[in-house]
Amino acid sequence: MNRRIVLYWVGRIVLLEAALLLMPLCVALVFREWNTALAFLLSALSSAVTGLILFFGSRPRTRQMFAREGFAIVSLAWVITALLGALPFVITRQIPHFIDAFFETVSGFTTTGASIVPDLSVLDHGILFWRSFTHWIGGMGILVFMMAFLPSRSDRPIHIARAEIPGPTMGKVMPRMQDTAKILYLIYIGMTLLEFILLMCGNLIPGGGMGPFDSIIHTFGTAGTGGFGVRATSLAEYSPYCQWVIAIFMLLFGVNFNLYFFLLVKRMGAALKSSELWLYLCTAFAATGIIAFNVRHLFGSVEETLRQSAFQVSSILTTTGFATTDFNGWPALSKSILLILMMMGSCAGSTAGGLKMSRVLILFKTIRNEIRHLLHPRSVTVSRVDGKKLDKETERGTLSYFAIYMLCFAVCFLLISVDGKSMETNISAVAACYNNIGPGFGEVGPASSYAHFSDFSKVVLSFAMLLGRLEIWPLLLSLAPSNWKK
Amino acid sequence: MNRRIVLYWVGRIVLLEAALLLMPLCVALVFREWNTALAFLLSALSSAVTGLILFFGSRPRTRQMFAREGFAIVSLAWVITALLGALPFVITRQIPHFIDAFFETVSGFTTTGASIVPDLSVLDHGILFWRSFTHWIGGMGILVFMMAFLPSRSDRPIHIARAEIPGPTMGKVMPRMQDTAKILYLIYIGMTLLEFILLMCGNLIPGGGMGPFDSIIHTFGTAGTGGFGVRATSLAEYSPYCQWVIAIFMLLFGVNFNLYFFLLVKRMGAALKSSELWLYLCTAFAATGIIAFNVRHLFGSVEETLRQSAFQVSSILTTTGFATTDFNGWPALSKSILLILMMMGSCAGSTAGGLKMSRVLILFKTIRNEIRHLLHPRSVTVSRVDGKKLDKETERGTLSYFAIYMLCFAVCFLLISVDGKSMETNISAVAACYNNIGPGFGEVGPASSYAHFSDFSKVVLSFAMLLGRLEIWPLLLSLAPSNWKK
Repeated sequence: MNRRIVLYWVGRIVLLEAALLLMPLCVALVFREWNTALAFLLSALSSAVTGLILFFGSRPRTRQMFAREGFAIVSLAWVITALLGALPFVITRQIPHFIDAFFETVSGFTTTGASIVPDLSVLDHGILFWRSFTHWIGGMGILVFMMAFLPSRSDRPIHIARAEIPGPTMGKVMPRMQDTAKILYLIYIGMTLLEFILLMCGNLIPGGGMGPFDSIIHTFGTAGTGGFGVRATSLAEYSPYCQWVIAIFMLLFGVNFNLYFFLLVKRMGAALKSSELWLYLCTAFAATGIIAFNVRHLFGSVEETLRQSAFQVSSILTTTGFATTDFNGWPALSKSILLILMMMGSCAGSTAGGLKMSRVLILFKTIRNEIRHLLHPRSVTVSRVDGKKLDKETERGTLSYFAIYMLCFAVCFLLISVDGKSMETNISAVAACYNNIGPGFGEVGPASSYAHFSDFSKVVLSFAMLLGRLEIWPLLLSLAPSNWKK
Repeated sequence: MNRRIVLYWVGRIVLLEAALLLMPLCVALVFREWNTALAFLLSALSSAVTGLILFFGSRPRTRQMFAREGFAIVSLAWVITALLGALPFVITRQIPHFIDAFFETVSGFTTTGASIVPDLSVLDHGILFWRSFTHWIGGMGILVFMMAFLPSRSDRPIHIARAEIPGPTMGKVMPRMQDTAKILYLIYIGMTLLEFILLMCGNLIPGGGMGPFDSIIHTFGTAGTGGFGVRATSLAEYSPYCQWVIAIFMLLFGVNFNLYFFLLVKRMGAALKSSELWLYLCTAFAATGIIAFNVRHLFGSVEETLRQSAFQVSSILTTTGFATTDFNGWPALSKSILLILMMMGSCAGSTAGGLKMSRVLILFKTIRNEIRHLLHPRSVTVSRVDGKKLDKETERGTLSYFAIYMLCFAVCFLLISVDGKSMETNISAVAACYNNIGPGFGEVGPASSYAHFSDFSKVVLSFAMLLGRLEIWPLLLSLAPSNWKK
């Protein structure tokens, strides 16, 4: 392991965080929250000093990098940025306990949106902004973010990228990593702006919009598929217009970003041929339909029933975690469907968490192959995804990913059971954190928070969020002692 | 598909069932339950007639058999024997509703032990005997049972066997299928007798034993890893001696029967080298230890705490389902551990259900391989199970089995959620039926029954029991329409 290059890159990322901390500082100044502004200044300075020490203290002698260095950079960067990002919460005493602040920041950067703040009114504008801004930063991954800024003359960053970009990719959009990052980044910013404008447009309709601050916060939460909001009731108190806009944008941010690139270069056909997209959309529509039928007695009108179902499905499937109603009180069938959707997640190459639709698709195809093979042992079956042959290596990789995914789920579930909460709470808390959603059922429903968990469970759940966000392997491999040998 | 040979074999199995139905008939006569005896006579006649029609109506022109015929025979045989085996319950009106009776019989033959009878005192001796006898028959599989009786001059039955014998086998005990079956069958009978004798020996200790009838019933339940008993409180009211005997025998019946053969031929070393055995024993001991610590405040003495923990762990891990206490009231950690044990199951080649320890072992090894491969992409890693190389095909087969296992779990969970019960009830009901355990948590805890589920859910859960018992593929493949083409 080339430790120096790991620390060098982590240093660069931490320096970037220092710069990003100036954004909430400005927000605090605008809202005249002087103490909060000071806290952000101190945090930015701490990050800058840490970053500079790592950066200059570890000038690598060689630039050679392998997968293991990439995995270590990504894992370490997420943990250290979360540790430093927790400082403003602690310094302002708005989340005085450090483990709570760490949980909240990990939840932000991993775009989970699980909160330990039972009453959001204690947080001021600067802090609320930082909380949601971490979603936006985390959304596309610190890496893609960085790559768009930093010049790269070699193919070095490819190892970090392989660990970072979620799911099996559908094919490279652009031959050069650097350009891909830039384009994805521009699409991300463009869609963020569009959502912000549409939410602001709501103010033209009587009683329809939300203020600029709320619009920014909710746009960040949607774009990063995070889910931190500004009110304890999440989006329940906003207008149907805003709820529809956010429901649709959540769904849009759950689509593989490569497909938007195809749209940009007017290769509509290629985009529409994606089987992952169709599986994603069909799942969303089918789930909305069944849930709407199941909860029809709870709401007054057809529009409301459809809106509530579509919003919750969109929110859970895309692993965002906003809510317009306390779905914890819904009938068992709807809750079971939501639990399964939590696991599935959205498309690969989006900002969402979960198993990812492409993996679900490959799992289905592999099972179909296995059935064919057992029925006709001598025939050779070839399955294709989007015209490309599904090779044994991909099938095997997906199957082992699924196995390790369930294994980690079981371990986290056992560990947080120590707290003695109900099985529904434990299973859904792990599902909600591990798949980067946020709210679950039972004591972690959308109307509750994670405040009542023990410190131990909070650390376990933070770890689950990181595992889920980094798609398990990078974090797990970085923990292997053999990985750190010189 | 050679349909004739499928019906021919199913006919033979049904004829055997007719003969087996004479056993509870005798029991009913002994206890002077004339109506029940008549019911068994009628059921035996119905089975005999059905069997003869199938047998003579379908004399196959060719004896050629492939995997698909084997799968169809096994699946069809289990369903038809369950349908016919349900007759005594319905005719005696002790379980008047046919779907309930079918559920109870499937639960018996699949060695699950999930009951829809809330009050066992309504059942008389003949019926109680039949219920538990189905466990014993199901335990080693109708096939092994049959093969020990029927002469076979070719290797025909191997395809049925491949579908029937649970789990990946560790190596053939004997070169000829027929002999293997006979030896396994003898070990099974021997251990059954030994347990019966030990339970009866309890009567020599003051207040220590159980009557002959209860001993037979509980021996059947243990041997088949089923779990049907004679009292609503399962084994809670029996003496500590009986509880210990049954706890130990449950564990013994969860061991791969091949290992007993090794012991018989004095190859102790080979038996003790089995990594599956060690994983199984370590899991049992670790779970007992943690649970004992977790529930220590609930019981008066160290012996009682250990006994209760060991009994419940042994019962759940071996997928038997007896209980000596209402573990539904245990702390969350203990329940979570039990839920995970439900999924794991015991050793392959035993009478237990679940994923099986050998699969869990292969999954662990595969994950370790994957980690090594990711850390050192160019190195070739070979893992071994008991000295034998773990090949890609086995790894792949186990990984896909795990995927289809979880998929079927999710589907059953969604389907029974329609009933609107709690998430804990739904998850544990599916886990308990699918893995052939019996009692779960919540509304299906050891102090409750499955009576309150809708007919639809009962059918789904019956299907789950069959899926679990037949290890998914045979049943699933038999449902594939392409399998039935001539």
